[in-house]
Amino acid sequence: MTTESRTARTVVLGQNQYGKAENRVVRIVRDGTTHHIKDLNVSVALSGDMDDVHYSGSNAHVLPTDTTKNTVFAFAKEHGIESAEQFGIHLARHFVTSQEPITTARIRIEEYGWERIARSGTEPGAAGPAHSFVRTGQETRTTQVTFDGRNWEVVSGLKDLTVLNSTDSEFWGYVKDKYTTLKEAYDRILATDVSARWRFNWTEDTQRVPDWNTSYTEVRKHLLQAFADTYSLSLQQTLFQMGERIIGHRSEIDEVRFSLPNKHHFLVDLEPFGLKNDNEVYFAADRPYGLIEGTVLRDGCEPRIPADLTSL
Amino acid sequence: MTTESRTARTVVLGQNQYGKAENRVVRIVRDGTTHHIKDLNVSVALSGDMDDVHYSGSNAHVLPTDTTKNTVFAFAKEHGIESAEQFGIHLARHFVTSQEPITTARIRIEEYGWERIARSGTEPGAAGPAHSFVRTGQETRTTQVTFDGRNWEVVSGLKDLTVLNSTDSEFWGYVKDKYTTLKEAYDRILATDVSARWRFNWTEDTQRVPDWNTSYTEVRKHLLQAFADTYSLSLQQTLFQMGERIIGHRSEIDEVRFSLPNKHHFLVDLEPFGLKNDNEVYFAADRPYGLIEGTVLRDGCEPRIPADLTSL
Amino acid sequence: MTTESRTARTVVLGQNQYGKAENRVVRIVRDGTTHHIKDLNVSVALSGDMDDVHYSGSNAHVLPTDTTKNTVFAFAKEHGIESAEQFGIHLARHFVTSQEPITTARIRIEEYGWERIARSGTEPGAAGPAHSFVRTGQETRTTQVTFDGRNWEVVSGLKDLTVLNSTDSEFWGYVKDKYTTLKEAYDRILATDVSARWRFNWTEDTQRVPDWNTSYTEVRKHLLQAFADTYSLSLQQTLFQMGERIIGHRSEIDEVRFSLPNKHHFLVDLEPFGLKNDNEVYFAADRPYGLIEGTVLRDGCEPRIPADLTSL
Amino acid sequence: MTTESRTARTVVLGQNQYGKAENRVVRIVRDGTTHHIKDLNVSVALSGDMDDVHYSGSNAHVLPTDTTKNTVFAFAKEHGIESAEQFGIHLARHFVTSQEPITTARIRIEEYGWERIARSGTEPGAAGPAHSFVRTGQETRTTQVTFDGRNWEVVSGLKDLTVLNSTDSEFWGYVKDKYTTLKEAYDRILATDVSARWRFNWTEDTQRVPDWNTSYTEVRKHLLQAFADTYSLSLQQTLFQMGERIIGHRSEIDEVRFSLPNKHHFLVDLEPFGLKNDNEVYFAADRPYGLIEGTVLRDGCEPRIPADLTSL
Repeated sequence: MTTESRTARTVVLGQNQYGKAENRVVRIVRDGTTHHIKDLNVSVALSGDMDDVHYSGSNAHVLPTDTTKNTVFAFAKEHGIESAEQFGIHLARHFVTSQEPITTARIRIEEYGWERIARSGTEPGAAGPAHSFVRTGQETRTTQVTFDGRNWEVVSGLKDLTVLNSTDSEFWGYVKDKYTTLKEAYDRILATDVSARWRFNWTEDTQRVPDWNTSYTEVRKHLLQAFADTYSLSLQQTLFQMGERIIGHRSEIDEVRFSLPNKHHFLVDLEPFGLKNDNEVYFAADRPYGLIEGTVLRDGCEPRIPADLTSL
Repeated sequence: MTTESRTARTVVLGQNQYGKAENRVVRIVRDGTTHHIKDLNVSVALSGDMDDVHYSGSNAHVLPTDTTKNTVFAFAKEHGIESAEQFGIHLARHFVTSQEPITTARIRIEEYGWERIARSGTEPGAAGPAHSFVRTGQETRTTQVTFDGRNWEVVSGLKDLTVLNSTDSEFWGYVKDKYTTLKEAYDRILATDVSARWRFNWTEDTQRVPDWNTSYTEVRKHLLQAFADTYSLSLQQTLFQMGERIIGHRSEIDEVRFSLPNKHHFLVDLEPFGLKNDNEVYFAADRPYGLIEGTVLRDGCEPRIPADLTSL
Repeated sequence: MTTESRTARTVVLGQNQYGKAENRVVRIVRDGTTHHIKDLNVSVALSGDMDDVHYSGSNAHVLPTDTTKNTVFAFAKEHGIESAEQFGIHLARHFVTSQEPITTARIRIEEYGWERIARSGTEPGAAGPAHSFVRTGQETRTTQVTFDGRNWEVVSGLKDLTVLNSTDSEFWGYVKDKYTTLKEAYDRILATDVSARWRFNWTEDTQRVPDWNTSYTEVRKHLLQAFADTYSLSLQQTLFQMGERIIGHRSEIDEVRFSLPNKHHFLVDLEPFGLKNDNEVYFAADRPYGLIEGTVLRDGCEPRIPADLTSL
Repeated sequence: MTTESRTARTVVLGQNQYGKAENRVVRIVRDGTTHHIKDLNVSVALSGDMDDVHYSGSNAHVLPTDTTKNTVFAFAKEHGIESAEQFGIHLARHFVTSQEPITTARIRIEEYGWERIARSGTEPGAAGPAHSFVRTGQETRTTQVTFDGRNWEVVSGLKDLTVLNSTDSEFWGYVKDKYTTLKEAYDRILATDVSARWRFNWTEDTQRVPDWNTSYTEVRKHLLQAFADTYSLSLQQTLFQMGERIIGHRSEIDEVRFSLPNKHHFLVDLEPFGLKNDNEVYFAADRPYGLIEGTVLRDGCEPRIPADLTSL
């Protein structure tokens, strides 16, 4: 073990954080014979006065990652899980206010959706026991809550929401250089796996707290509608329309960032087989794919969501 | 290159097959401004008189895998895709009847579901252009069609349908040996990712062809309802109930095989924190998991689905 | 819950098995300051007199999957892990001989390789403490041990061994039909992810037990050398050469089955850019891929490895 | 399509970039009968004057992502691939200097390693044809090259290098709060999948260019040796030691960032079975895992590597 004194160091510690990642907590609420389920994947990252543990291995300032895991499960009982955001706020506040060396806590949460299975002879919503669920399997809802003891930053989002327009998409009028061979397209499939993150302008405890679940539902709706409504001349244009729609309709949000793979669907050449392919048969390619990324901001707001989006 | 004569061989060729796997074909049907989409992953496996290509590398009997790929895309145009099963039947028949050395064709198909996105100001199903889709993301529908020139075998199924009962599941009364430490459970979560395959009794062209899409919808419904209806004393019991329900309701099906991981949700011990966990907070574990597999058969029928289920 | 009596059933139970899958056991052996590591993923599948648990949920014959997990970890201590095969034999024998209702046990094991990290100032193999390892990351070694109380079947293998020949591969002289567009190739890349399973002719306790670790090392060597040595006119030919080499050199093995994706590397057309591509620049495609599968047998032996290979 | 004039906008475009991601290029160099292989996954991200394409869909400034793909393959021929870094520099310079609207290009590359397969009867390195390869399967080498027309930033790295110390790791003396249940450990397994990124101080064309391949080999060596040499009281300490070793030995590097999952190996309690587990049998857990992230800097240098590491 190296035991240099710090004064002699030619290397120093920069930004650092630690915690337990991917705590898979499932919370059941029993309302008589009707049960409710919340299914989360919670990752904790703490930072603060942590030089010693890096320089000498002293853990005197280190709350174990195992403890952060225990806290996640205990808080699921103590506070319940009304929304991923609210749950993250409870956790972040706890770590920063209860541990002196911890100055910032960042909680990342993925949420998986479930819908009810109706028993035979009944319809969804009918009276009777309701404790059977099937995972929706569609997008994963995400949030990132950061607290530095004074201000909050909440960036929520979704990922793996796969959408496709089978027409009303064109791509032409682009730059041609010596490496350009692409033919212009006047009717193509436009498909992407939407990964989006949006930042709330709620930053202080004195502000009115957004209704996180309503906000999510509405953002998702506007995003999908903007995708469906837009006659697209480029995926960038669709990206901006989705962001504009969200910020235009949701005053609680100031910034949206998208990462949109252009999932190419190539029209198959059927002429060698004496067949005409009138935009009917496509080959769905894996790689490479276009990757279109961008931020849409409320005018006058500063961007804070970094270019690289990760959820864990 | 070894050039032994075949007569001198001490090793021989056994079962073999070849073809192009994972052809990702997307088929759009335009009914005016209303579009329909089918999204398949098609794998072709051909077998027959293929000794020479293995022994000497002679490709004289080999239809290239590239050709099998072309055929998939051409058939999507020529025959359309009414159902994965019907599409597989067209392909299997073609390879066996058009290529003398090919005696058996097996087509495996995965199908990914899509639902419509409504434009803003409209509801799903409203009049107006309809060409926007979002992937359902739930289970993958599968089929395997095998044709030997005379008989058909169709084994359809689904995978990755994740279901959970938050109560009405117990586990007790089991064998205890010296390695047993498990506590009996009288109220537990029961969760699994359903992987199921069911075999149709349609085997000859002279028989009436099942309505493949209706059959799928109904099997899925019965499977889910059986999961929800069953007060479970073991996952094996739930498995059998699901199979019995399917065979009892669907006369076109003689055999069902399931592979059901028991996705453990462990009740978290919150007592160290002075909290009571009354079946509210669970840790969802990844590995290890129980794995329960079994076949349910119509009485008098012979089993044909092998123990190991794969879809590609 | 359905409560039909068994006599009235129109559905019956077929093949079934259960157990704990993917037990991740790491075993350290300390030989002074030199440590040795075995890193396994063990899956247990038991079958026997299990009708009741399926029909009524009675667990009276069911050794819990949790107990099978405990047994895996306890046996890692009691018996050590000399090889995956030997460890699987201990486990399979235990379950069949100690539990009356269990008539067959199948143990599947994946093994991950590790190599030593040398300390600074030393070379691998030097004296001094040796307890640091880096995962090799290459192929996964597998085995499947099945015991029915009388006979053994051991099928070992490997998967995800990615190999590539940058020349000495051709493909021509194949069948052309109306869907064939492929150009013949006289110098192409041949690449595949080898998945192989080989069956030992050791079936009874009275026979001399193979040296499992030597056998694995030698089979892997012959397989790789056959791939490198073969001037290939088709991937089928390479498959047969690999199988023949293994059976020809290893008398303990009677059967080998391969599943070989043909990982296409397409020569990129650089002519539009005024460049000649003399087999230098390739696009490595993901899907679709050719899939070549086949069994090679010692003459006179019966095939027993099923067409679909799975390792878990 | 929305056609608001920009002056009326209440939303604006922020940071954005686009390009083709995951171009899988394989480059063969034939030196007589000895071949050499480079196997890369190249992602291009361009940014600059791109407002119009987002606001109106005009592609007048857009070089198609398809063209960026073509350029990758053409440059593999024109410039060869001496190292991932050198190849990225050629590409980034080209896009920024040849396209007026493009002001910044960021090239991300993953490189997969291959080693030679010896023919039978020969040893690796022996004379004779050498065109057979097996993928090493160990870590993935990465680089990110960014050019803004004036300055370069090169951040290279690796990911998925799995390492384990079977002793010489402790964890004790940490903070205990009401949610702490962890027992102190005086001899534990320490295992992680190393993900590291290091930034070069080469930023201008006038500086001497580092030997990228030597640099990579040496960084990897120091990182592994530091892991093996360190008697660890915390994973943070090991992280810092690895960073210090790299910066201390490699003058071309000013900053290193690590993301290190603490891959827990739990000692299995074998006492219920009458067995003593003297640090011999471990359960390797998947989730949750500790996640330790941190930057190590040359004293006086500014940090530039963002907290979230992604390679694509």
